[in-house]
Amino acid sequence: MTGLPTFAMPGGFLGADGDTGGGITIAGIPFDIATTNRPGARFGPEAIRRASKMLVDGDHPTLRRSVALGLNDTGDFAIALGDVPASLALIEQQASQFEHLVTLGGDHSIALPLLRALHKRLGRPLGLVHFDAHVDTWPDSFGQVYGHGSCFYHAINEGIVDPKRMIQIGIRSPVQTDVLDWTLQQGVTILSAQDVHERGVEAVATQIRQVVGEQPSYLTFDIDALDPAFAPGTGTPEIGGLATWQAQAILRRLSGVNFAGMDMVEVAPAYDHAEVTALAAATLVYEYLALVQREV
Amino acid sequence: MTGLPTFAMPGGFLGADGDTGGGITIAGIPFDIATTNRPGARFGPEAIRRASKMLVDGDHPTLRRSVALGLNDTGDFAIALGDVPASLALIEQQASQFEHLVTLGGDHSIALPLLRALHKRLGRPLGLVHFDAHVDTWPDSFGQVYGHGSCFYHAINEGIVDPKRMIQIGIRSPVQTDVLDWTLQQGVTILSAQDVHERGVEAVATQIRQVVGEQPSYLTFDIDALDPAFAPGTGTPEIGGLATWQAQAILRRLSGVNFAGMDMVEVAPAYDHAEVTALAAATLVYEYLALVQREV
Amino acid sequence: MTGLPTFAMPGGFLGADGDTGGGITIAGIPFDIATTNRPGARFGPEAIRRASKMLVDGDHPTLRRSVALGLNDTGDFAIALGDVPASLALIEQQASQFEHLVTLGGDHSIALPLLRALHKRLGRPLGLVHFDAHVDTWPDSFGQVYGHGSCFYHAINEGIVDPKRMIQIGIRSPVQTDVLDWTLQQGVTILSAQDVHERGVEAVATQIRQVVGEQPSYLTFDIDALDPAFAPGTGTPEIGGLATWQAQAILRRLSGVNFAGMDMVEVAPAYDHAEVTALAAATLVYEYLALVQREV
Amino acid sequence: MTGLPTFAMPGGFLGADGDTGGGITIAGIPFDIATTNRPGARFGPEAIRRASKMLVDGDHPTLRRSVALGLNDTGDFAIALGDVPASLALIEQQASQFEHLVTLGGDHSIALPLLRALHKRLGRPLGLVHFDAHVDTWPDSFGQVYGHGSCFYHAINEGIVDPKRMIQIGIRSPVQTDVLDWTLQQGVTILSAQDVHERGVEAVATQIRQVVGEQPSYLTFDIDALDPAFAPGTGTPEIGGLATWQAQAILRRLSGVNFAGMDMVEVAPAYDHAEVTALAAATLVYEYLALVQREV
Amino acid sequence: MTGLPTFAMPGGFLGADGDTGGGITIAGIPFDIATTNRPGARFGPEAIRRASKMLVDGDHPTLRRSVALGLNDTGDFAIALGDVPASLALIEQQASQFEHLVTLGGDHSIALPLLRALHKRLGRPLGLVHFDAHVDTWPDSFGQVYGHGSCFYHAINEGIVDPKRMIQIGIRSPVQTDVLDWTLQQGVTILSAQDVHERGVEAVATQIRQVVGEQPSYLTFDIDALDPAFAPGTGTPEIGGLATWQAQAILRRLSGVNFAGMDMVEVAPAYDHAEVTALAAATLVYEYLALVQREV
Amino acid sequence: MTGLPTFAMPGGFLGADGDTGGGITIAGIPFDIATTNRPGARFGPEAIRRASKMLVDGDHPTLRRSVALGLNDTGDFAIALGDVPASLALIEQQASQFEHLVTLGGDHSIALPLLRALHKRLGRPLGLVHFDAHVDTWPDSFGQVYGHGSCFYHAINEGIVDPKRMIQIGIRSPVQTDVLDWTLQQGVTILSAQDVHERGVEAVATQIRQVVGEQPSYLTFDIDALDPAFAPGTGTPEIGGLATWQAQAILRRLSGVNFAGMDMVEVAPAYDHAEVTALAAATLVYEYLALVQREV
Repeated sequence: MTGLPTFAMPGGFLGADGDTGGGITIAGIPFDIATTNRPGARFGPEAIRRASKMLVDGDHPTLRRSVALGLNDTGDFAIALGDVPASLALIEQQASQFEHLVTLGGDHSIALPLLRALHKRLGRPLGLVHFDAHVDTWPDSFGQVYGHGSCFYHAINEGIVDPKRMIQIGIRSPVQTDVLDWTLQQGVTILSAQDVHERGVEAVATQIRQVVGEQPSYLTFDIDALDPAFAPGTGTPEIGGLATWQAQAILRRLSGVNFAGMDMVEVAPAYDHAEVTALAAATLVYEYLALVQREV
Repeated sequence: MTGLPTFAMPGGFLGADGDTGGGITIAGIPFDIATTNRPGARFGPEAIRRASKMLVDGDHPTLRRSVALGLNDTGDFAIALGDVPASLALIEQQASQFEHLVTLGGDHSIALPLLRALHKRLGRPLGLVHFDAHVDTWPDSFGQVYGHGSCFYHAINEGIVDPKRMIQIGIRSPVQTDVLDWTLQQGVTILSAQDVHERGVEAVATQIRQVVGEQPSYLTFDIDALDPAFAPGTGTPEIGGLATWQAQAILRRLSGVNFAGMDMVEVAPAYDHAEVTALAAATLVYEYLALVQREV
Repeated sequence: MTGLPTFAMPGGFLGADGDTGGGITIAGIPFDIATTNRPGARFGPEAIRRASKMLVDGDHPTLRRSVALGLNDTGDFAIALGDVPASLALIEQQASQFEHLVTLGGDHSIALPLLRALHKRLGRPLGLVHFDAHVDTWPDSFGQVYGHGSCFYHAINEGIVDPKRMIQIGIRSPVQTDVLDWTLQQGVTILSAQDVHERGVEAVATQIRQVVGEQPSYLTFDIDALDPAFAPGTGTPEIGGLATWQAQAILRRLSGVNFAGMDMVEVAPAYDHAEVTALAAATLVYEYLALVQREV
Repeated sequence: MTGLPTFAMPGGFLGADGDTGGGITIAGIPFDIATTNRPGARFGPEAIRRASKMLVDGDHPTLRRSVALGLNDTGDFAIALGDVPASLALIEQQASQFEHLVTLGGDHSIALPLLRALHKRLGRPLGLVHFDAHVDTWPDSFGQVYGHGSCFYHAINEGIVDPKRMIQIGIRSPVQTDVLDWTLQQGVTILSAQDVHERGVEAVATQIRQVVGEQPSYLTFDIDALDPAFAPGTGTPEIGGLATWQAQAILRRLSGVNFAGMDMVEVAPAYDHAEVTALAAATLVYEYLALVQREV
Repeated sequence: MTGLPTFAMPGGFLGADGDTGGGITIAGIPFDIATTNRPGARFGPEAIRRASKMLVDGDHPTLRRSVALGLNDTGDFAIALGDVPASLALIEQQASQFEHLVTLGGDHSIALPLLRALHKRLGRPLGLVHFDAHVDTWPDSFGQVYGHGSCFYHAINEGIVDPKRMIQIGIRSPVQTDVLDWTLQQGVTILSAQDVHERGVEAVATQIRQVVGEQPSYLTFDIDALDPAFAPGTGTPEIGGLATWQAQAILRRLSGVNFAGMDMVEVAPAYDHAEVTALAAATLVYEYLALVQREV
Repeated sequence: MTGLPTFAMPGGFLGADGDTGGGITIAGIPFDIATTNRPGARFGPEAIRRASKMLVDGDHPTLRRSVALGLNDTGDFAIALGDVPASLALIEQQASQFEHLVTLGGDHSIALPLLRALHKRLGRPLGLVHFDAHVDTWPDSFGQVYGHGSCFYHAINEGIVDPKRMIQIGIRSPVQTDVLDWTLQQGVTILSAQDVHERGVEAVATQIRQVVGEQPSYLTFDIDALDPAFAPGTGTPEIGGLATWQAQAILRRLSGVNFAGMDMVEVAPAYDHAEVTALAAATLVYEYLALVQREV
């Protein structure tokens, strides 16, 4: 345990660099112009990587080994400044080169091209574990068709995600009733934040495993699934959300889910303080890495 | 879903303006000189209205319709700068013109003139659902008789509130033992924050409904009932408080209570960050509106 | 001097509402997706209006009368969320309805459609007084053609602005040398921030009046012309900038310039503190209003 | 140079305690309910004392000896919570016990009782060196007669201050023209902030010395005389103000003025950051102490 | 209830000064150079004392009397600036003079000399109730042997603490597996934060009482045992931690434990906001004082 | 001008990486335990590098070409956690490998080993251009011999720096008179901040060039030479300091000075906001690079 203290480490996620070949690849996607409220998630990748330094020194406490083995960080994806459709196309194209991709957003609109790329690679609809305060199945937001509140509307309509194997956890925002009804009619399972608080983490994890089954699934984690007390640094906060311990506890109980990728989105550092949001995001990615490594 | 994005909306609560006749009226009361610790709640009305914009786009998730229908926002009440008694008189006078008033404070001293006005209108003592970290039944605070810690001492003594139908939720501050004993002797029910954590939201809501019964009641919500993690932007924070999800869960279970008015007090934006306190206040008012509309 | 204290005033600029017919119109343009660095200027209009309340109580100290007479505030312009070209078109269309428009941005890309609309109304190229840390004459920014750093490249190329009657004050950022040379070759006069510090406000004001002459001119004020000490809340700060007193002193010496409109852009409140940037922006707009009224 | 590092020192101004008999007495006045905009100056005394620790280690750089000799800090004055007239009476009564008092506010309304007490002690009208962004000679503020904007209206009317020996430095806020004219008609000399920027510190200091002469004078320093860049933590900021170096340079040139007391007011820590405002206030008090000691 | 409002109180913890002879002594230890990540806990004592003012006015709500009786605050211990071994020696020496010491840190390295002094006084190994996110039993941190992550490694090795009577609550950070295993092999009981969330406060308190038994014990509370939502102002935050209500509820259930001293460490005010961390620390010390007084 | 926007760039200073052989080397030194007041400069290197991204896009405005050519960033130096003497030795050893080193601190104590290494390389005493609020020639600070306030005491005593060729700019803190006198007696030239404000940047630059002459010199820039308005994020701020434009203007006038290295120290990001301090530090390093390149 000698060497550079964590605060002097280079900047990749958990200190990873871009050189390693196999395993899991981290990429940042500094894109935030599809937000409907507070922007700033373009600085999310940088903030999450920086906060991840606090997690480097030691092994994961339940996995009992480092989660950074075999990890590489390819840096940030190129985007088309100020242009949503061109950026989504660029993201999809870059994502398609990686076997198992964990992305740091960026706003939630990036999930659509990431899912498109993964769907092409796997050749079948994906299960989806979706943590969020919002359903994100609006056909549009104030006229914007590919906004951050519409990514799963398109993913379902395009057949990329199997709505019967899709579950949303933490939902609690105001929502147009016809949007909510459409989502339920597709077969999506919705657990509100109040459901999580009432039923407990064990029951929630069981239901997630049941809904997504054993086929390949994807984890999309909007940091606003957490309560603003735990994650103030985000664009469209809603009160009444999850504690970080609940999110951790649920993730740790998802052994057996066949995860093929993950994104962590909507971290907006300008609204954060003392890096608590960035640290929450980094640690939840860290939990995902431990979970996936546990399967190996 | 076209039109102005929420961040470009005009400034009334949930976008309401002052034109509508009937229904519920929102008013701000930018008064904070009766505080005993941190001032700044004079900026509460502005901050709560601004945060409420985040709630405009969509229906209430369990009411399944907009809560803004029939709502009007009359702006801020006039106050007498630097003069507590004159301000309380002005507040009572202005409050007396409205049928069903929901006020955005301001410090808790404003509850007294609001209750006086409502008591005059209804002609009988009111039930009181009182969320707070403090009992607010001190005869005085450092000699100040109408301070923000004395409003319910006067309300009980003046016969405005029926202490047998009064319940306090979230209490946890240091308090003079004789003040506490006097309060209990009047018949007030006190649920400490630890009581809420131990018994759960269902039991608390049941007890509230039992205590206040079916006669007209009033909801007074001091934002410091919430834990400082969830509501840092307030004047006299106390640790160990409620999570926002608990406050929401309790409010949603108060169907059947005959509410005749509400205030949301002690939001001090200078101590807030990322608008989390203002958003908590706005959302809890939104829950009240949904609750009252549910009854219609 | 009775009535509502300033902190309880309604939300229009200097308390103005939208009802008055003639005079000068304030409009907000909550658009910020053409930024190349920190976003957030979509919240600029709200923040500038709020800060303007501090200026309401009293007359302008050198004009010796209120500057709010005849002022109306039409609220915010509609924009196309997430779509730069559609937003620019919408802004131009809305701007074309007003005689003398003072807009609160928003990022600097909005200056282009505002100038297009004004040019159509007046039928001839405009003089331009341009306060900024950046020349904003880049053909593109990382490929983005209508970004906030390219507005005057287009304005010059489209013949909207007469580069011989265009003067830039406060310039100091890194810049591609060919962009700088192109700008100078068009005939634009550039005063760096160091020039202002060395020559003094009187000489700068004299040169501005000489460059723009007596034909109609437009004032475009990027808040990053100010030093970050005076205006931290902006997207692309550069050190070494102007003090607020210098900007005020220069503006007050521009009597005789025939101003036909103004914009105040790039206020990003998420990076502000204690509202100092918003107050600087509001006060400089207030100085413009005093300047224009002085001419009447 | 051994012993406790400055950050571990006890809390009095410059480490002074209340025990010493003679010399100069520091007192805090945690009173802020006469403010018309942002409150919070009640926490000014604590913040200024804390910031003063940074100045303890070493001698004053131009006085070349410690300024803390003979200094005592009597703690905070008692006030009447929520009651302006009673508080002003209490302040006057407590102030009257001290020979040479330097007070840490609190809002500017405290200057009136402090001047009343000093006037009684000295038996003749005082000269006044008044640093401020505002004239503070309004007959009332929104109806409030003893607000923080009216202290010198009363001081002049009560014959406590000799307006011919009164000079205001840094004035720049909006102001009712008749208030401004009344002030000038009394014989008060007004130097705007722009006057200071144009004429320079030497000329300003010379004029101050000429106006107040050799009879006893009082220094009242509203921290908003400084620009918000240098002093964001205050209630009614105005841009275009003084830099701290200008205030220091002017004070250091006031040798020969016969100062009988000082107040430093309107430091509102909730709006400060990194203690820059509190440090500015502490250092300017420190300059005053050096100035007065220089005379001994 | 007259006298100085709490915000005007002198600076000792709960207003205590250094004069009282017997009872419990508060001391600050402004030492933070043994931290491995964010420094700044040197300002912890000052911040905790200041926040404690909010707790002065009234009795402890369940103890039903003041906890400040017999309390004295001796100020801050001298330390050797920039020198870890010399500082630890100084701390031990100063601590040895006090009967029952409650210290305000400072980083966790101070626990070692405090325990050494207490061990010498009592002449036998201590039981330890240790709230923390980290085990702090690393042999070294990046080569630093007496860092803040190694204090209990030494305390166990030196025979000061009886590992069979040592329990850690809130553990959740990454940790080297051999460090964790060594700790368990010594006989230390470890309750992770997830354990607390799952089992509940009653079970945790029961287990603590069982582990430490009736012999003298010491409470060491690293504020990062709390979740960053409740305590952002600390050096090595970890998500998923305890709520303040849980810490309070556990402490209140520790009647019967024979506590001989306490420290509250790792409060780093530069990362706090609205004093929530300092207030949490102050209130948990206050709970300890109530707990100890309950035993008398 | 295509490619990654600046906010997505990798983390080296101006985007430089460690690969390039020749030219100038950037290194971070995350060491801050020799501070006497606020710590936190260990995070300075990271913050300065991040802020430097804002300067990448374009050429230096007066040099008219990129300053990043031939630049490499070797990352952070290893330090000995918690151990001042061992860290200074490590720093000297690492520094000795580089031809022309520009370091990002870190507190000012790092200047001593950097100067020692450079002195060994060059074999003769160095001239020193020293921007600071403090003389940093104290024999010790509260007993600490190698604290951040003593680096130049040792450098002079060790014959590393030639005091006749040493000039300090911006000095203004309290200081022990015998320390100040010793410094002057060695032959050091001291320009106070007030001297800079009075004499102007041209005169200051001329004097610097005269003092240091044409032999090799070193630039040591303590960010607290700047006023806290321009650089709040530092450990021992003093009011009355330099504006960033003054520092820039002076540096640009130092053509002809034979600079052999530079450090930028005392940036403490926890006290910064909106990155203004980090940006000031990055830009002044950028000016140094332009200055040195101008000579080539």
